[in-house]
This record gives sequence, structure tokens and C-alpha cells, in this order.
Amino acid sequence: MTEVAIIGASMTRFGERDAWVRDLLAEAGDACLADAGVASDAVDHLYVSNMASGEFEGMTGVPNALAHDLGAMPAYTQRVDQTSSSGGAGIYAAWQSVASGASDMTLLVGGEKMTHRTTGEATDVIASITHPVEYKHGVTLPSFAGLTARAYLDQYDAPRESLAHVAVKNHRNGVDNPHAQFRKEIDLETALESPLVADPLRLYDFCPITDGSAALLFCPVEVAREHATDFVTVSGVAGATDTHVVHERGDPTVMGGVVESGRQAFERAGLGPEDVDVAELHDMFTILEFLQYEGLGFAEPGTAWQDAVEGVTARDGALPVNTSGGLKSKGHPLGASGVAQGYEIYKQLLGEAGPRQVDAEVGLACNVGGFGNCVTTAVMEVGR
Amino acid sequence: MTEVAIIGASMTRFGERDAWVRDLLAEAGDACLADAGVASDAVDHLYVSNMASGEFEGMTGVPNALAHDLGAMPAYTQRVDQTSSSGGAGIYAAWQSVASGASDMTLLVGGEKMTHRTTGEATDVIASITHPVEYKHGVTLPSFAGLTARAYLDQYDAPRESLAHVAVKNHRNGVDNPHAQFRKEIDLETALESPLVADPLRLYDFCPITDGSAALLFCPVEVAREHATDFVTVSGVAGATDTHVVHERGDPTVMGGVVESGRQAFERAGLGPEDVDVAELHDMFTILEFLQYEGLGFAEPGTAWQDAVEGVTARDGALPVNTSGGLKSKGHPLGASGVAQGYEIYKQLLGEAGPRQVDAEVGLACNVGGFGNCVTTAVMEVGR
Repeated sequence: MTEVAIIGASMTRFGERDAWVRDLLAEAGDACLADAGVASDAVDHLYVSNMASGEFEGMTGVPNALAHDLGAMPAYTQRVDQTSSSGGAGIYAAWQSVASGASDMTLLVGGEKMTHRTTGEATDVIASITHPVEYKHGVTLPSFAGLTARAYLDQYDAPRESLAHVAVKNHRNGVDNPHAQFRKEIDLETALESPLVADPLRLYDFCPITDGSAALLFCPVEVAREHATDFVTVSGVAGATDTHVVHERGDPTVMGGVVESGRQAFERAGLGPEDVDVAELHDMFTILEFLQYEGLGFAEPGTAWQDAVEGVTARDGALPVNTSGGLKSKGHPLGASGVAQGYEIYKQLLGEAGPRQVDAEVGLACNVGGFGNCVTTAVMEVGR
Repeated sequence: MTEVAIIGASMTRFGERDAWVRDLLAEAGDACLADAGVASDAVDHLYVSNMASGEFEGMTGVPNALAHDLGAMPAYTQRVDQTSSSGGAGIYAAWQSVASGASDMTLLVGGEKMTHRTTGEATDVIASITHPVEYKHGVTLPSFAGLTARAYLDQYDAPRESLAHVAVKNHRNGVDNPHAQFRKEIDLETALESPLVADPLRLYDFCPITDGSAALLFCPVEVAREHATDFVTVSGVAGATDTHVVHERGDPTVMGGVVESGRQAFERAGLGPEDVDVAELHDMFTILEFLQYEGLGFAEPGTAWQDAVEGVTARDGALPVNTSGGLKSKGHPLGASGVAQGYEIYKQLLGEAGPRQVDAEVGLACNVGGFGNCVTTAVMEVGR
């Protein structure tokens, strides 16, 4: 199997953007190629991670439009959709394209344009991810998050404040990310007194609705050695499903897709959770950061909240989590989010993360679709 | 690189179906696993080729639902969208998953549910494939087909009747396909006197709107040798784009994506057009059968119409094309069509095509997205 490298990365400013997804994708794609110093006509596979351009914008065939806009024709194009984990699925698809020998230069661009729709409309599109039975009864993703948070706090006797620590940390990190939607610190009190959304979760436990795009450029390690002085390898990547009907899960605080995709990704990389120096976890809701942290083996079940409270996951802690600001402060443009996680790990591993920089040789990105219905995990290392 | 085999295939009845896409996908998926004698929990990757379940049915996350319905959890799932060539893109994705070593058993299921929407609504969703500028001016896919057919007939002094020969042949083949939407023969006169749609094309030059699903099961050739007494190999598969703005093409009768994906697929297979014994071409419009036939090198530019008139592409001709009945009579449930092309070639190569059977060791499937905006081509051979 061909070893797979990443030799370029980019992301646009996340937030409210006066542009269509096509424009955002082109912005990130162009910047990624420039970052790598690779011409667009060298791209032979172009993947677009996007959940719902048809529903949000009435536009399909976006990957073909992007090949046109970037000047990448006749590159093969395809849209990768795995709901809110489309970006992580894109990393897996890009990895497969290079590892299989199908491609020598795969550009992955993830993006979504959402803020032109009302919150109700956007929520309705996102809720169509869930099982029709649950969707029909009004059980949306935020309500799953509330129910799960309540179960976690009860089961492990964890304080409500521990969730607020996640929000405070990720907002703190976002201040130093020029691409983040929200660049403002918040304190525990602000988080704890924000409006109730789905008990016990409040406004500051949720990520916002966001426009944005991010891109990564993949090639064989041998090609990377020619093109780049420094690069990153994707040493293990995998994905897995959990029950589509969320209420059928035995223990709602265990995300089976996280556990299984993490296990496989570590196995492929020949590494374990103890080897990871920095991680981007899918904090669409604060509670999810705990569930992934535990599911990936960074802490025993029921103890992630302690690491959050004690600062283990802070930028200066033993295992910094969401140095980018996470979905919480950076924003969550569905198809872009998993790719932007890869962007942050890439920058951290190459020592290019500026004020957010931590000391890292091995990084991990975990991207969650639906309410853990499908999850991808990627382990990345400094390339040699 | 791991050699890739197909060890099972299925398709549902195509036509108007009183079922959601989820049900259709489960029907094809179950049947495919049964055909191969493989248990659902052996599936580790599950790809769903589908263009627009969100737009047609307000339902996303369908691959996760399917993993649930088939009992394939915790298999990794992903939706593969490449507009009307989503099925061919699915074959390419499944091939990459096995060839890369990521998967030992990949189930690909393609499907679409369309007939519950009005023709206007369905056409509007399909038209969103095209470039927004062209779309906005009302240039839909049928109108591109009409303009291109006119250019072809003029450029090569081909008789209008030659297009009708494609419709007559494919309807004739469809009579023997129990899964086809239309199982009735038509004569040249019927085709030539049917209502005008986009001059010079008439009703019988167009495929219908269809519900349906098809599935293929992929694994490494070594695994296939254990599981199956006979199987098929995917010896070459590739995809390529042409301009997204159709009117920017120099010669509208040359489909660049067909030419390039065919060239790459043949190169990977170590074969050429002269080696192909049977082909499924994307006859969404009759004119497209000529353009692919020429683009893939089966005939010189401007001569495909002669082979159609002379019966070369008939079931008893030198190169049978669309023995399944093609999209014309079998129907065109977008995401299913490319997979169903693979189904037909699989059946032909294994000698299981019943009354449609031809003598074939090498087959080819060409799936066209948009108006050739992106095309995939797969070369398949009898496995040994």
C-alpha cells in the first residue's frame, strides 16, 4: 500500500460569508494549492466534502463546478457526503485514492454555505440526518445532546460546570485563530447563565451555524519528499457506524462509532491514545468532547470531565484538545469541519500554528456525523 | 495494489415503486449479499450511490440508515454523489476501498426514488447539475441533447433515423430484462413519430424518470477465490471531467470526460476498445450512445450511427451495447444507473444473463454525469 502524505492545507475565514459554497470552495482550494506550491493541473482527483448544497442553495454538481473554477479539469471529481462528518469522510476517501494508486495528487476541499437560511431552515436540513422516526417526533440533534449530557452528569456524578469548561477553553483557543467565527473569550459564568436550549445544555454548549471551507492536498509520501521540505503523513484513518436509531443504544454515553473508528485508526497507525500529542474533537455540543475523549481512550469512561476541569486539555495541558477553537468557537460549516480539523493538526505538526502552537509529533482528528451515527478518525504524524 | 473482484450483484425492479429510497436500497443490498452468500456483518465498507435523497425525499444520512437496515453496523458508510454518474463513481470508490487495503468486503448500493415528484420537480432537481449560468437561462439537459444531436447529424451527415435505431434496439433488449421499466418493443416509425421534445429529439430519444436500486459486492481477488466459484474482476476504472460550462466545449460531439476516463480505464486494465465484448453505455438520450461509442474508441468519430443502423451494437452484433435495455427502456434512477450497468456486465461475464446472454470475456460500463461534466468508465473481466 502506498504511504499517504499531506503537503498543503488551507482554510477560509469561518463565519457569515457573502459568497456561495462554490466561491468558498474555490477560495480554499486555490489557497491550498498555493500553500503546497502545486499547479492546479497536477491535481488528478478532486473530492468535495459537502452535505447539502442542493438543500441549502439548490445547486448540485458542485465538484464539477470547482474543477472548472480551479482549472483542475480533467481531474476526476466526486462529492463525499457523510452528513456532519463529510470532511472526515473526505480525508478517508482522499487517503484511499492515494493509497490505492488511483491518484498521485488528490485535492480535498470541504465546505458549506448555511447562514443565508434561517436557523429553523438550517436546523431542519440538519435534522434530516436522523432516523425518520426520531426526526418525526421532534428529537433533533440538540435534544439528543441534552438528554445525553443529563445521562452523563448523572451517571458519573460530574458537575454541570465541567461542560462549561469545554466552552471556555475552546473560546480561549479561538481568540488566537484568525479563521474562527467567534474570537472572544467567555468566562464560566457567561456559559452557565446563557439561555437554556436543551436542559442541561445552554447556548454556549452549542456550536453556531457557519459558512466556510477548508482544503488539504494529498499525495504519496515519495511525491511529498520531492515537493515539500516538510509534510505530514496520514498513518491511520478509519470510519465506523453506530445505531442509526439513537435510542437503541445501550449506554448513551458511549459512542460506538468513535470507539470503533479510533480503534481501527490506531491499529493502522501502529499507535495508541498515549502517543497522541494534540487532538481536534468534534465539539458540536460540549458533551461530545467528553464522549470522544473517552471513546478514543484518552481517559477512562466518566473521567473526561475531570481532565477538562483540571486543564489537561488546555493548550498548555498534557493533551491539548481543540487548539483551533473547535467547532464551538471556530464554527461548524458541516462539510468543512472535518477538513478544518485536519488543517489544524497539519499546522500543529509542522510548527506553523502561530500563537496556538503546541509541542506535537502525533495528532488526531475525530469527526462525528449525526449523533455519532457515523464517525471518522484520522491519526497524523510529522512526515520524514 | 490489491486486485479487486466483484462476487455478488443484484438489482430491484426499476419503474414506479411504492417505496422510499431506503427501502429500495435495502432490497438491493439484501439481495446482493444473498447472491454472494456473504453475511451482512462481513461488510466493512458500505457505499451508497445517490444523487438527491435530500431534495427528493427530505432525507439525508441514508447510508447510516442502510447500515442499520442491513445489519452491517459498524461498517463504515458514505454517500457517493457524482450527479447522474453517482453509480459509476461508486464503483470507483468501492474499487479504491479494496485496492487500498482499507476494506476486505465493500458493499455498493445505488438508488434513487423520483416518481413521487412531478416531472417538473424532478427535472428541476436534475437541472441543478448544470452550470448556474446555463441553468438560469433554461438550458436543461434535454435541450443540450437536442442541440448536440443536431450538431452531430449535420456534421456527419447522419440520418435522423439512426438515433431511432438506438431506441428500437434498447427497447428490444429491455423486453428480456425482468427488471426493466419498459418491456415493450417499439418500431422505427413509433420512435420517429413520437412527440417532439428538443428538436430533433423526440419522446423515444429520452430515458424515463424511474425509481430503483442496484448493488455490487467487492473484495480482494484472493478473498473472492475463497468465497466464490466464479467472479468478475474490475481490471480498470477511472473518471474524468469535461468543462462544467457545456457551451465552452470546442466540439459538442466530443465528450472529453468519456475520452479521458476511457483512456485511463483501458490503460489500467492493459486492454483497448478492441478487447471489449459487451458494453453498457449511458443512453440517457439516444445521441449519448453514439458519443460514448466514439469517445471510447469503438468507432471513428462520426461513424457510430452506421454501426447502430447496421446492427453491430445489437445483441447478435459484433459489439452488443446495452443488452440490459439501457437507461432508455430499463429506466434511470440516477444513483442506481451506474451500479445497474455493473450488474449487467457482471451477469454477462458470468453467463447468467438468461435470454440477454452474449458471448463475453471483457465488458465495459460508461456512466455519464450531467452532460458529460464528469464520466466514469469501468473495464471488467471474467475472474480467474
